[in-house]
Amino acid sequence: MNQPKIFLEECAHLAAEAFQFLKSTTVADRAKFMHAVADEIEAIGQELLDAAHEETALPMGRLAGEKARTVNQWRSYANAVASGLYTEARIDLSEPEKGKSDIRKYNIGIGPVLVFGASNFPFAFSTAGGDTASAIGAGCPVLVKGHSGHTKTSTIMARTITEVVARFGWPNGIFSHILGNNVDGTDLKIGAYLAAHPSIKAIGFTGSYYGGKSLFDIANQREEPIPVFAEMGSVNPVFAFTHLLNESAESLAKEYASSLTLGVGQFCTNPGVFIAVKGTGLERFKRALEAEIVKIEPATMLNSGIYSHFEKNKKMLQDQGAVAVLTESAIAADEGQGAPIIVHTSAVNFLKNKVLSEEVFGPFGILVEADDYEQVFAIAQQLKGQLTITVAAQSQDIVEHGDTIHVLKDKAGRLLFNGMPTGVEVVYAMQHGGPFPSCTDPRFTSVGPDAVKRFVRPLAFQNWPNAFLPEELKNENLLGITRMVDNVLTVGRV
Amino acid sequence: MNQPKIFLEECAHLAAEAFQFLKSTTVADRAKFMHAVADEIEAIGQELLDAAHEETALPMGRLAGEKARTVNQWRSYANAVASGLYTEARIDLSEPEKGKSDIRKYNIGIGPVLVFGASNFPFAFSTAGGDTASAIGAGCPVLVKGHSGHTKTSTIMARTITEVVARFGWPNGIFSHILGNNVDGTDLKIGAYLAAHPSIKAIGFTGSYYGGKSLFDIANQREEPIPVFAEMGSVNPVFAFTHLLNESAESLAKEYASSLTLGVGQFCTNPGVFIAVKGTGLERFKRALEAEIVKIEPATMLNSGIYSHFEKNKKMLQDQGAVAVLTESAIAADEGQGAPIIVHTSAVNFLKNKVLSEEVFGPFGILVEADDYEQVFAIAQQLKGQLTITVAAQSQDIVEHGDTIHVLKDKAGRLLFNGMPTGVEVVYAMQHGGPFPSCTDPRFTSVGPDAVKRFVRPLAFQNWPNAFLPEELKNENLLGITRMVDNVLTVGRV
Repeated sequence: MNQPKIFLEECAHLAAEAFQFLKSTTVADRAKFMHAVADEIEAIGQELLDAAHEETALPMGRLAGEKARTVNQWRSYANAVASGLYTEARIDLSEPEKGKSDIRKYNIGIGPVLVFGASNFPFAFSTAGGDTASAIGAGCPVLVKGHSGHTKTSTIMARTITEVVARFGWPNGIFSHILGNNVDGTDLKIGAYLAAHPSIKAIGFTGSYYGGKSLFDIANQREEPIPVFAEMGSVNPVFAFTHLLNESAESLAKEYASSLTLGVGQFCTNPGVFIAVKGTGLERFKRALEAEIVKIEPATMLNSGIYSHFEKNKKMLQDQGAVAVLTESAIAADEGQGAPIIVHTSAVNFLKNKVLSEEVFGPFGILVEADDYEQVFAIAQQLKGQLTITVAAQSQDIVEHGDTIHVLKDKAGRLLFNGMPTGVEVVYAMQHGGPFPSCTDPRFTSVGPDAVKRFVRPLAFQNWPNAFLPEELKNENLLGITRMVDNVLTVGRV
Repeated sequence: MNQPKIFLEECAHLAAEAFQFLKSTTVADRAKFMHAVADEIEAIGQELLDAAHEETALPMGRLAGEKARTVNQWRSYANAVASGLYTEARIDLSEPEKGKSDIRKYNIGIGPVLVFGASNFPFAFSTAGGDTASAIGAGCPVLVKGHSGHTKTSTIMARTITEVVARFGWPNGIFSHILGNNVDGTDLKIGAYLAAHPSIKAIGFTGSYYGGKSLFDIANQREEPIPVFAEMGSVNPVFAFTHLLNESAESLAKEYASSLTLGVGQFCTNPGVFIAVKGTGLERFKRALEAEIVKIEPATMLNSGIYSHFEKNKKMLQDQGAVAVLTESAIAADEGQGAPIIVHTSAVNFLKNKVLSEEVFGPFGILVEADDYEQVFAIAQQLKGQLTITVAAQSQDIVEHGDTIHVLKDKAGRLLFNGMPTGVEVVYAMQHGGPFPSCTDPRFTSVGPDAVKRFVRPLAFQNWPNAFLPEELKNENLLGITRMVDNVLTVGRV
């Protein structure tokens, strides 16, 4: 399906117009809007779950959970917007005797945002997902390029948001939903066309490295470069240390197998690499892991494209030198189903062959067996940027290998002490975003209320009359937001 | 002067090592260091002012003021670092009954930062300037590529910082000062070489569009792209409205002439474009402006390169069609001196000929005379990103031309209501940074304590033992910083 250029231009034009409107709304106005969207999404019936189940093969239970998560995102981001924290409002009052002006600054929406839906979260990271919620919260109109893997689901979500826009009497251009591949009559992808469009001021994306990096390059080569928040996944290594392995190899194996195969391994935070030093603890872990993996049932992947990529990449990794299969599911897989598999190799080989550090999207793990902790340290140093790194350790391990852990801090957005990285909580302290190449901008998170901060920029007013200031900066502080006034945080008036 | 590759590699290597050290320091440690640097800079004697005066021709009074400002930057950024506000520490405590983990996040230094000194602020935006202070405050080692226009001044500043590093017993690599042009034996500029170096994780720059954009392109084409904070200047337009002009044309002319020629017009925030609708108010403004400009003495510019650029660009602008000289200094200028000059043109011509919107660095202004407010609105819409925009208006003007002012909000980092944009106060509410092409990243400021935020990224810890958390995130909060704990800002312990 293609779209005529005139339609895309109209969407971009309406978004630019709607931005002029949204700039005048307050944090309270937008929070109210977001709560209304949350309520409407919550109210959609079985139709939504059925469509998503049909289009993504995700189980009903998981989809119901994801729907609740999506509603929670709209609500918690709405509350965060209402609190005004993300506006980072600062007021420095004038001191005429010192010649100091009255200066007030707050974060304002950056402009229309282009959002790309992700395949693996048809609700929470797609049309009505976290990028859309946080962009609108920030005061930015959104153009969603809907994911081709779940167009019916996306259309239901888009209709819901559009209805709320109409009910509020807000301009249509606040939200547009665009499906399709190319710009009609050209070889140009719709996403690439819009990413280069002068009306677009930022991009949110969750998906492959190839997709995210292409958008990043387009965005930086524009006449006016724009920020791109592309979350491109990673291998989320688990570093397991000796004391912990010796103590609890079996429970760690259970936990790891479960995390690696959760949702047929189709999570950005799937722990695809496991690193440990050889020894009795690791041998016990391997036996326990085999016992777990053989009995895990293959399950249908999101779509045929993801399935065939999984099969191809898994084979490619297996075919590397000095790599052997450690264990795989003993249950026969149908066409389209991802069967869990774990390969293993030496640390020396892992360090040498960069292909082994590439993400295989699906239930695929690689166990790296090191001879000693020098090799583990070398892996930590060589590691590329990750969304998460898990340190499976006891306190004594941290004491003994502080240097390795210190280096790991440079390589991830979130460091776990035991536990597994799948399961990304929607809270303020969450960081979902890590150093390149896991993301194009590690300075921001795409999960949690701080996600709103991606779509703003500071604007300062100097000696501006109170009556014409935005509500967030007026003396009265009728919105009751937290502001810094003459270096002190306060919710009071000036 | 060239530098051997081995020296540059050593600087980069030492910076990377020093980052491992700085990562373990607390906000309090770094604040103490910054206060010590402030004290030492304050203590430098006449030697510093003499060197700067000799190298930049800036008057002694201005240099003394800039030195005090530089000391104030180190101190106020130190206090900001100590307060921990920039760390945006967030703690979400675990709720085992809901299966929620303990997650804690704070902003950590991004890694070694490459800083380019600016020509026009030999203290405040150069070797020991705001970029260096804010990067070290954030926990990042700094490599300064010293500006060729004031190497002696920079060397004194570098020596001062180096002495403090030694006194604290911190690694040398925390601060390196690099002078010169090319990498020895190559055509490659030292700045370009370092900008592409894998150890460098961010770049701070103040200077020309050409220089800043080149660094931006290098940074984005690296294997690991890195953020570039390039402040590249702008024309900082003044939009003067009718009620204000009718009321106070003469005082506005005085104020504008003074701001335009301050420091021989060598400020990033120099108001190079003045826009107003024709009428008696504007005619009075023009007469008054002429009376001011003719009597302003030409003065020596920063260096011969800047002088010759000024002469060339000023001539180039004058030679555009439908542009005439309105007024210029009546006092003869010596070689190397910038003589104030103002040209004028119609709004129609200004809209048509993009060359007229280009910055001329020096005491050069262009007065744009519009036939009506539709043309003023069109100029606002066409305007590229600016550091500042000044609205010279009475309240009634804002009421009548709210649409124009609403559009102007998209085009600048700082909006002034009357007053002039030169004079950038070092306060929290300051925004020095605007939409492209005034800056490469409008989401950050290079002046004020928030400048520290350029050089950090969030790092989250999940279920991490309290003993091994960074001091900023420990239960005890011995640093007494403001943190968000379970959605509430507090300075208390957990």
